[in-house]
Amino acid sequence: MVHADASTFQEGLSKKEVYAQIIQQASALVDGQRNWVCNLANAASLIYHGLRTLPSPLKSVNWAGFYVLDSKNADQLILGPFQGQVACQTIAFGRGVCGIGAETKVTQLVEDVEKFPGHIACDGATKSEIVVPIIQNGKTVAIIDIDCAELNGFDLEDQAALENLADLLARSCDF
Amino acid sequence: MVHADASTFQEGLSKKEVYAQIIQQASALVDGQRNWVCNLANAASLIYHGLRTLPSPLKSVNWAGFYVLDSKNADQLILGPFQGQVACQTIAFGRGVCGIGAETKVTQLVEDVEKFPGHIACDGATKSEIVVPIIQNGKTVAIIDIDCAELNGFDLEDQAALENLADLLARSCDF
Repeated sequence: MVHADASTFQEGLSKKEVYAQIIQQASALVDGQRNWVCNLANAASLIYHGLRTLPSPLKSVNWAGFYVLDSKNADQLILGPFQGQVACQTIAFGRGVCGIGAETKVTQLVEDVEKFPGHIACDGATKSEIVVPIIQNGKTVAIIDIDCAELNGFDLEDQAALENLADLLARSCDF
Repeated sequence: MVHADASTFQEGLSKKEVYAQIIQQASALVDGQRNWVCNLANAASLIYHGLRTLPSPLKSVNWAGFYVLDSKNADQLILGPFQGQVACQTIAFGRGVCGIGAETKVTQLVEDVEKFPGHIACDGATKSEIVVPIIQNGKTVAIIDIDCAELNGFDLEDQAALENLADLLARSCDF
């Protein structure tokens, strides 16, 4: 039985420990379950609640979730499961941080979203962002998107951990 | 452009006003967009953030989201978009508050989950719950599920408003 305690993160953990718990819990949750909506919904919960237990800047994470390929339009992403406030429904490939991450298949680590060409301001409170593509058979099937209300919210440690999570989700979900 | 401000709820609104804003924003979000994952993800955000701005008991809402029919197993629900901590992945029709709501197609207004036969304790903090079925062509396609960490979290006003929301989502989403 899955239990909410799985996304209870102790105060005082290091970033390394929080990501280790996120990956460990996500691995357990996807074991025997390949439904992408179900798995991404729980993964968004783990990321959002886990990162917000950390000191600044990650305590200021204000959105964590997923965009996936829109089955009705192969040139755009559509909103998937997330935690945080209401979000843009569709994003064209190549547009904004999410669209560039999806198109280039390269993680976008954005210290200051105001300086990112074509940034889509779903939430004016967001100051920095990370987008990590989820790749299956060489094709972007989804992206992890996390926003932070502080500048420089994310670093190479976040990138490495989230790329591991993206690999796990690519292997374990039927999109 | 959808904006996070759509799920910013002023402090001091009445329950009636908060539900009116939830329904109004949800109507705007589903206009021209029938993707159920996208629409339920934003609806979960509206419910969760809207209700938590209200006084006790609704400020103690600790989970708001959806379960949908599992396409791999017609006798069970599978986790959809939600906001809150990690949740049970699948629930058999007829089991617990969600399963009974799905099977009977009748809203379950549960003052004290401990007294509900067969309650599934995904989160031990939850004290009360409401489950509202989403019906298309006479069949349950999904349920709205909201948990509260106080007893008697929900009343007939919540039920009426959430049944309106369920009707809206049934009309506006392709499940």
